[in-house]
Amino acid sequence: MRQVDFLKSGLASKFAQGNTPLMKQNPSETADQLKRVVGGKYVLTGQDARPWGRDWYENATWSPLAVVRPGSTDEVAAIVRIAHDSKIPVVPVSGNTGLSKGTHAEDSIMISLGRMSRIREIRPSGRVAVVEAGVVLSNLHDAAEEHGLIFPVTFGARGSAMIGGILSTNAGGSNVVRYGSTRGLCLGIEAVLPDGRILDLMSTMHKDNSGYDLRDLLIGAEGTLGIITAAVVKLFAKPRAYVTAMAATSSLDGALSLLHILQSETGGAVEAFELMPDTFIEAHLKRFSDARTPFKDMHEINIMIEIGALSRRDASPSDDGSIPMADALEEILARECESGTVLDAVVARSEAQRREMWARRESAAELSLLYKPMIHNDVAVPLDRVDDLLNRIRTRATELDPGIRFLNVAHLGDGNLHFTAWPESGDPKTHEAINLAVEEEAISLGGSFSAEHGIGISKLHSMTRHKNPVAIDVMRTLKNALDPHGIMNPGKVVP
Amino acid sequence: MRQVDFLKSGLASKFAQGNTPLMKQNPSETADQLKRVVGGKYVLTGQDARPWGRDWYENATWSPLAVVRPGSTDEVAAIVRIAHDSKIPVVPVSGNTGLSKGTHAEDSIMISLGRMSRIREIRPSGRVAVVEAGVVLSNLHDAAEEHGLIFPVTFGARGSAMIGGILSTNAGGSNVVRYGSTRGLCLGIEAVLPDGRILDLMSTMHKDNSGYDLRDLLIGAEGTLGIITAAVVKLFAKPRAYVTAMAATSSLDGALSLLHILQSETGGAVEAFELMPDTFIEAHLKRFSDARTPFKDMHEINIMIEIGALSRRDASPSDDGSIPMADALEEILARECESGTVLDAVVARSEAQRREMWARRESAAELSLLYKPMIHNDVAVPLDRVDDLLNRIRTRATELDPGIRFLNVAHLGDGNLHFTAWPESGDPKTHEAINLAVEEEAISLGGSFSAEHGIGISKLHSMTRHKNPVAIDVMRTLKNALDPHGIMNPGKVVP
Repeated sequence: MRQVDFLKSGLASKFAQGNTPLMKQNPSETADQLKRVVGGKYVLTGQDARPWGRDWYENATWSPLAVVRPGSTDEVAAIVRIAHDSKIPVVPVSGNTGLSKGTHAEDSIMISLGRMSRIREIRPSGRVAVVEAGVVLSNLHDAAEEHGLIFPVTFGARGSAMIGGILSTNAGGSNVVRYGSTRGLCLGIEAVLPDGRILDLMSTMHKDNSGYDLRDLLIGAEGTLGIITAAVVKLFAKPRAYVTAMAATSSLDGALSLLHILQSETGGAVEAFELMPDTFIEAHLKRFSDARTPFKDMHEINIMIEIGALSRRDASPSDDGSIPMADALEEILARECESGTVLDAVVARSEAQRREMWARRESAAELSLLYKPMIHNDVAVPLDRVDDLLNRIRTRATELDPGIRFLNVAHLGDGNLHFTAWPESGDPKTHEAINLAVEEEAISLGGSFSAEHGIGISKLHSMTRHKNPVAIDVMRTLKNALDPHGIMNPGKVVP
Repeated sequence: MRQVDFLKSGLASKFAQGNTPLMKQNPSETADQLKRVVGGKYVLTGQDARPWGRDWYENATWSPLAVVRPGSTDEVAAIVRIAHDSKIPVVPVSGNTGLSKGTHAEDSIMISLGRMSRIREIRPSGRVAVVEAGVVLSNLHDAAEEHGLIFPVTFGARGSAMIGGILSTNAGGSNVVRYGSTRGLCLGIEAVLPDGRILDLMSTMHKDNSGYDLRDLLIGAEGTLGIITAAVVKLFAKPRAYVTAMAATSSLDGALSLLHILQSETGGAVEAFELMPDTFIEAHLKRFSDARTPFKDMHEINIMIEIGALSRRDASPSDDGSIPMADALEEILARECESGTVLDAVVARSEAQRREMWARRESAAELSLLYKPMIHNDVAVPLDRVDDLLNRIRTRATELDPGIRFLNVAHLGDGNLHFTAWPESGDPKTHEAINLAVEEEAISLGGSFSAEHGIGISKLHSMTRHKNPVAIDVMRTLKNALDPHGIMNPGKVVP
């Protein structure tokens, strides 16, 4: 029985911060209380809780004290009050597709938001959706689409990632180059604070300057300051046409100049600009028997480009059925082929071809599991430093592990590299040294050690190493002020 | 002598929060300390400090203990440490063009950021500018322009407003409809905390997810949590052509449908969509002898439209010299004239005509001073509720003051109404009642009582009335945690 283990292990406070949680009652009493809030079938323990006891990569496993599945914000608040009064750690979880161990929950109450999956409202003319934390991203995509609108956050895990986690981690994705990260796409939130109070900031206004920006403080805090239970998010006009292409370039500098040309010629309509090196293409071919190379020849630098044509002038088919924006893109690529910047290029001619391009890019997380061990990192540098970064990383990682093989993939339009590699060495110290080298090089090029995957537990050491110490101290001050018992997702984000 | 008054009046702690500031030393000692930090000529007291002792509307005056003009972030930090150790209130000020009494500084040390006016760096390819807090907005505009770029925040006071204040109030303006408010345009900040420590968050990365969003907590906090001393802001490609027009519409619903048509046809290229009612046009004619009406006939609803054409396809002059986007706009306006939605319209044919349209719109603050007394308010409602809001306000305000005259002006594309009126009554209670009614109606229509002018002192009562009480409590918790002595711009923002 987990509950007995829990008493014996005394691990409840292992990840606690601030005042150390101290049990005020025994776990079976707690479970009974939780059951009274949500009903017996929504409190899972022992074997039943096991599916919640691991992260996406299955690198980490843990045994939660209990998994509770509330159906409403009031229930979340009641659960948190119980935890608060008993000083038991609480870990929120929605889709559990995070990559930084942000849901590690040894001997904690996990609050799974999955049942709170209602899209409360879509207001097409106001361009907003009001959604609960457990709404799966792709469901929101579908609901918006019915009104000819989009919610522009997207990434491979969209079929299971949920709004609560997407906001809590300020997720990025492939469309950041046009629409920005999640934070900028959220107008309002509702959250349960560490003492169980409900914070209602569900503004639907684009302009709302009424006091401190508590919304953005909770967004990206990975559940350490409260649990986001609902949100108002922005919707956008769906581009009238998407024009998608693959281009191989002779250099990364060439790829960048292509990006600038595209932005300038299309008026900033680039929705995705994704780098897949040859190592990525090879892994993709290996993993999927029906996979095809993007071009006849293999090239080192392969870019997936997507342009979203918003205006009628750009998107309405001309008499011969061609889309003006597609013609423009082909013209640009042809011109750059002549100049030698582009080595080969292909524009998708059908939705099926477009989907094939996207499927390749979005297989990244799956590809990373092709071999073991695997290490990964999520760094960003200024656009014009990606080339430097890749070269320096290659040199330093190979010094540390001569047999290392790289996968790598990058949101090149954001300067965001998902360093991914399979080291030959099985030694965790080597892995740690490689990751440290990657971060050091990113920082030395004016970049960030954490671009879009968040901190969780995985990047705590990096925070200590690289983050401004005053900032860490201020974070700690805020954490202690809002969560004096240290029960909200303890041990994450704040070193 | 102010210093003697200061000792006698005992007002130093009047606006203090949290622990009440308690003088540890006498003011002349403090002035000496300040002089040692910045040099004697940069510490102003008595008559010399008077220019800093009033707000833009001159509705409020005060006597600062001293005005200090630091030349660097280190000097700001040293000043704040002196204030911190002596528990003297500190009020930061940059352009002092705020409209909510956010710089009220009775018996406080005012820190004027005006000397810190260096544009440290413009990185054209990275699309960022690194600026000090005292950079005047129009100077940043000019510097960006040299690289064919823009910083898209703009409003009437751009010739005196400075970056520090613009960030601290999360200023809006006329281009929010396309580029969003200031918060979304800032990548990094440097700030001096209430204990004098320097918080360095000068990221230049578009993606940087490394811990709590302290940047956005300080932005919009109006100097109550720290003093922003420098920032990294985003720059954007300057539209290749601006197409500006005035249109009179038959109704506000018609104006809104025009906005939606323009957004859809241009791919979201609307940069400004500003409502000037007939009352505004009349005030403009009265105030400026050389002013002209926008149309031959007077119309009730006058909209200034600006489209920014980014792409070559939209902006390159055709053989006859016309701009494709201007042709498109004229076509749309002509079509809507036929349908009866638009009553009259004129597209600017020269930069001089464009500037005339903008000058009219940007005279709003000056026009408001045409008569006394004047009352104003800054509310926002969902786009489709502006008509309701205007009708309800007109009814309620006229009930409270039958002789009231309205000016009014609105960022219609944001649902943001600058309610401005000249009441007949001189009774402050009537003015308060009218403002209360305006806010009530905005809230009841799902809006906000504070859209872009911030809270300062002016909207403290509104905060108490309308803001979620849990949010106010959390704000207070954060304020006390970061500023336990309550010295940073006390008495503002947090009720």
